[in-house]
Amino acid sequence: MKHTSAPSGENNNEMVVTPWEVKGKVDYERLIREFGTQPLTDDLLKKISSHTDSLHLQLRRQIFFSHRDLDTVMNLYENGTKFVLYTGRGPSGPVHIGHLVPWIFTRHLQEKFGTRLYFQMTDDEKFLIDDDASLPETRKYAYENALDLIAIGFKPKDTYIIYDVEDMDLLYDITLEVAKRITYSTARSTFGFQDSTNIGWVFWPAIQAAPCFIHKKLTGENVPALIPAAIDQDPYWRVTRDIAQKLGYYKPAQIHCRFLPGLGAGGKMSASMPETSIFTMDPPEVVKKKIWNAFTGGKGTAAEQRKTGADPAVCSIFQYYFYLFEEDDAKLAERERKCRAGEMLCGECKTDLVGKLNKFLEQHRERREKAKDTIEQYHIKR
Amino acid sequence: MKHTSAPSGENNNEMVVTPWEVKGKVDYERLIREFGTQPLTDDLLKKISSHTDSLHLQLRRQIFFSHRDLDTVMNLYENGTKFVLYTGRGPSGPVHIGHLVPWIFTRHLQEKFGTRLYFQMTDDEKFLIDDDASLPETRKYAYENALDLIAIGFKPKDTYIIYDVEDMDLLYDITLEVAKRITYSTARSTFGFQDSTNIGWVFWPAIQAAPCFIHKKLTGENVPALIPAAIDQDPYWRVTRDIAQKLGYYKPAQIHCRFLPGLGAGGKMSASMPETSIFTMDPPEVVKKKIWNAFTGGKGTAAEQRKTGADPAVCSIFQYYFYLFEEDDAKLAERERKCRAGEMLCGECKTDLVGKLNKFLEQHRERREKAKDTIEQYHIKR
Repeated sequence: MKHTSAPSGENNNEMVVTPWEVKGKVDYERLIREFGTQPLTDDLLKKISSHTDSLHLQLRRQIFFSHRDLDTVMNLYENGTKFVLYTGRGPSGPVHIGHLVPWIFTRHLQEKFGTRLYFQMTDDEKFLIDDDASLPETRKYAYENALDLIAIGFKPKDTYIIYDVEDMDLLYDITLEVAKRITYSTARSTFGFQDSTNIGWVFWPAIQAAPCFIHKKLTGENVPALIPAAIDQDPYWRVTRDIAQKLGYYKPAQIHCRFLPGLGAGGKMSASMPETSIFTMDPPEVVKKKIWNAFTGGKGTAAEQRKTGADPAVCSIFQYYFYLFEEDDAKLAERERKCRAGEMLCGECKTDLVGKLNKFLEQHRERREKAKDTIEQYHIKR
Repeated sequence: MKHTSAPSGENNNEMVVTPWEVKGKVDYERLIREFGTQPLTDDLLKKISSHTDSLHLQLRRQIFFSHRDLDTVMNLYENGTKFVLYTGRGPSGPVHIGHLVPWIFTRHLQEKFGTRLYFQMTDDEKFLIDDDASLPETRKYAYENALDLIAIGFKPKDTYIIYDVEDMDLLYDITLEVAKRITYSTARSTFGFQDSTNIGWVFWPAIQAAPCFIHKKLTGENVPALIPAAIDQDPYWRVTRDIAQKLGYYKPAQIHCRFLPGLGAGGKMSASMPETSIFTMDPPEVVKKKIWNAFTGGKGTAAEQRKTGADPAVCSIFQYYFYLFEEDDAKLAERERKCRAGEMLCGECKTDLVGKLNKFLEQHRERREKAKDTIEQYHIKR
């Protein structure tokens, strides 16, 4: 992927978290401080769990770790004002397991709070920011990625997928109201735009803002949007929050998640480094190969590892269990203990994971195939 | 009208011609030099008139005076490649006589060349560039102004009005292809954008470009667009021409007209100075009052004027005859002679014009009223 004008840090080891690039070792505590967001407190988690039976894995394990105004949204909810969910995907390529993580949590919220999801497929943005991308290609991936989204189990009647290029007429009036209130100067300082940035990219933040406010247009109900998304998207919402109230809407609230680490050392799982990611369409033997090549916290030899144990904290395999493939906290703790004690070696852990992953993907692909027949039911209703 | 960031000259007497502002005494020879356009030569006029029986008043009198690539379009036409017409209107208020002038010529071209017109109602742009404008207001004027357009006599089957806010889904893919190829730096230097310019305005030039290329999308035919418009719009087409061929289209050609002078001294007729413009909805007594208050080339007293004559070259009343209300060149010359000779005083000339104007407006409003029943036939066909 070649960016026409990618704002980024100079130093390769430096943490860089922007909507277009995540690299280096990500320090989440520092992100909370630098982005000025709030950590998810025990009180807030308790409040959420009072509506969701038990606390979702991704909240228990602090995969979702930060927020803006989630407390306000919960208070409104308890006083009778519902909320809608809004998230999205930049369809620049196939979907990998890392993309599914926040979607799984979003589906959980949809189910527990019985609320509508607006999902934006940003086929326009991916075209604008990547010199090599074509519109037919990003629109094709929008369709393909929607199949993966639907396979997660969202409810058709409560799921409104917006394909930007196709549905721009629905977004455009709200987008204009937003765009009129963002100066070039603000956009440049928020997103790092340069003179060489194309004017489509400069405008685009207004389009990402629009779905925050579309519910009122479609239904007449003024309710806040809650956005579950990775924290790299936060700059968009800062700008949107600044103008929401001027336009007569609630500020959109966010709940921010971590990035599922790639199979290499450090960084997020990235579609641009296919060997470090498990894609939903990867066949079993490819999954197996990628997992066997993954970076772990293991030692040079089996003998050494049996003696001194390994380090699950840096292990990409262990992260898969942590994020997705071991729902039972006690069993996860036991796996961690055995790893540290040298009782379970990397081979066993990898074999287990390959089995779980391939079973998960097989079922995912079955639902994904069925989604080809129902995909229109998920398209935004006019 | 309060512009968020209006690029303009400092000196009040200085000629300023930008897409957002025309002021000072307009020197059309200088515009041809500065904008780098071509004058309409006798050879080219002869070529046009070979397809249009006689030469239209607005060509004979050099109201359309400059062009880009009109010769190319004519050569293509003679070799079997048709063209489409494209022009538009920023619906920021009611239509005045000055707006009708290029529309009348455009209808002539549609009729004589049997070709399609795309007409863009830029309800989005007018909202973006004017702090005080609201979308409901610019959309209302888009409808109202379309009635005036239709009243000119365009053919429904060959007239495709695009209302930007409503029809953005049709324009958006082409707009993206254009926007990706215009850097902020280019947009700033072409349009004079500033840090305080909003990001919608920065993006907007790509939307004005899109209708140049829409014919291919709708019909599969790749033909050039010919744009009859006032010369202040030229910067848009310069940017569009630069990228047209990269996208596989013909460069859009232009034919540029002068501005109908306002009823005050100098400048164009402007909707923001209502006393200097005749609006299509002005009742007869208002028309009469405006004409009687108009700036002329007359003298201080009737006696003096009978003796020394008056100056039709600076007279706003004479311009009305020149642009629209005296089709017969010989009669126009006779009116000019009598004025210069002091044989016809301003009162007579004004009285004649009030009669002609009110008759014209009465008929216009009848057709405008009927247009309420047919307006949907003129909406872009999908």
